[in-house]
Amino acid sequence: MAKDPTQTYFAGTERDRAAFEAGIKLGAIVHQFVGTPVTEGTAAALERAMEASTRLQPLVEDIRVRIDRERLRAHGPYGYASLTEDLFDIEVVVRAGPSRAVGVLRFVPELDYPLMYLKEIGGPTEP
Amino acid sequence: MAKDPTQTYFAGTERDRAAFEAGIKLGAIVHQFVGTPVTEGTAAALERAMEASTRLQPLVEDIRVRIDRERLRAHGPYGYASLTEDLFDIEVVVRAGPSRAVGVLRFVPELDYPLMYLKEIGGPTEP
Amino acid sequence: MAKDPTQTYFAGTERDRAAFEAGIKLGAIVHQFVGTPVTEGTAAALERAMEASTRLQPLVEDIRVRIDRERLRAHGPYGYASLTEDLFDIEVVVRAGPSRAVGVLRFVPELDYPLMYLKEIGGPTEP
Amino acid sequence: MAKDPTQTYFAGTERDRAAFEAGIKLGAIVHQFVGTPVTEGTAAALERAMEASTRLQPLVEDIRVRIDRERLRAHGPYGYASLTEDLFDIEVVVRAGPSRAVGVLRFVPELDYPLMYLKEIGGPTEP
Repeated sequence: MAKDPTQTYFAGTERDRAAFEAGIKLGAIVHQFVGTPVTEGTAAALERAMEASTRLQPLVEDIRVRIDRERLRAHGPYGYASLTEDLFDIEVVVRAGPSRAVGVLRFVPELDYPLMYLKEIGGPTEP
Repeated sequence: MAKDPTQTYFAGTERDRAAFEAGIKLGAIVHQFVGTPVTEGTAAALERAMEASTRLQPLVEDIRVRIDRERLRAHGPYGYASLTEDLFDIEVVVRAGPSRAVGVLRFVPELDYPLMYLKEIGGPTEP
Repeated sequence: MAKDPTQTYFAGTERDRAAFEAGIKLGAIVHQFVGTPVTEGTAAALERAMEASTRLQPLVEDIRVRIDRERLRAHGPYGYASLTEDLFDIEVVVRAGPSRAVGVLRFVPELDYPLMYLKEIGGPTEP
Repeated sequence: MAKDPTQTYFAGTERDRAAFEAGIKLGAIVHQFVGTPVTEGTAAALERAMEASTRLQPLVEDIRVRIDRERLRAHGPYGYASLTEDLFDIEVVVRAGPSRAVGVLRFVPELDYPLMYLKEIGGPTEP
């Protein structure tokens, strides 16, 4: 990676930044797109748009967004659903120098909660 | 159109409803998608997702969403923009029985304002 | 009302515009704020912010936003909810010249749907 | 803090989590509230609502949200602005066990970019 002009603003290590940036991406996707009308027929277009917008952001190496068709329940007289947090299944990979973080959002039934967590994090803990 | 089960909730005429529903769609698109990271390269995917989500909603006959590439200005160290209200160019056609409304959102330079307006509205003014 | 410089852009009557603007406000509130974390303790602050932002918009005469505490269900390990469309109870009053429209959003159990509808609409049907 | 039931899902250290959670909060605030109509007169109510909704989320110790009145430019015939990313000035403090992260969002003129960064990060780098 070419020298990033934002680097001087950051405290901590590149590993810290990788974790931080993974969090940003998950928070951003969810709160940007929650509430969008969706059906099985339109889910793929929405997934592509969410992935494309995420790829533009700092340090994203890979992003996969899935809307859970099993949990998606069209309802009401017009037969569509609104995208809710529990329908997301996201995995985002962020790289900062030698460090890499994999952030996940998925609904965890045991917690009754759409959990964002670090699935993997690696790299030096010293600057 | 088959009898719409929501009809009994509405005051006014089908023409009133057509105008009302056109407004809903414009308000919804803008406030759902404003803030999404975008570039010339991702604008088309986002336009498709916005159109697809709008088509699911009540009484939409047609919808066209364009992001103004001329006004789109990538900036900052990562070279993307955030979708703002003044970048939208939307035309939505709504039909309620014999009535039809065409709602538009576009930036109007003379007003320095992204204006939502009724471009066309027709149909009986009596129930 | 002083002459509104946007008026020349509008097709139809002031009554059409009142209906259209009422729709915009409902679509905007919902798609702006859906997804916001909320509990009984924070609902009032959010209601005030939603009302304040709506009052700024064209032709709004009155606005009341309530989050349904009965339907609000805190869940997950951190004990909060996300604002969803079915939790809204909104009434917005719009005036365009002699015409007045009252738009409502509320969850209608019989429809299993958060319905936006015109509760009242009045004024001349001729320009 | 009582044992957090989400802990078993997390890779890495509590420091990694603190950085990650700080990122989530910044991404969430921005993409939830960008686009909201705002003036100097309504900015305070919106700031309070943004802070209240953030305090509900996991591991937040403190949050301060300011809308930059200097940059806020009401415009158009109705005299209000839309909240954009460059108007935010946010500082969020997250604690995970002995680790603490301070995340900031502010517009950085030299970068022409609203930068999210870790202002402080501390705590053990070993589990």
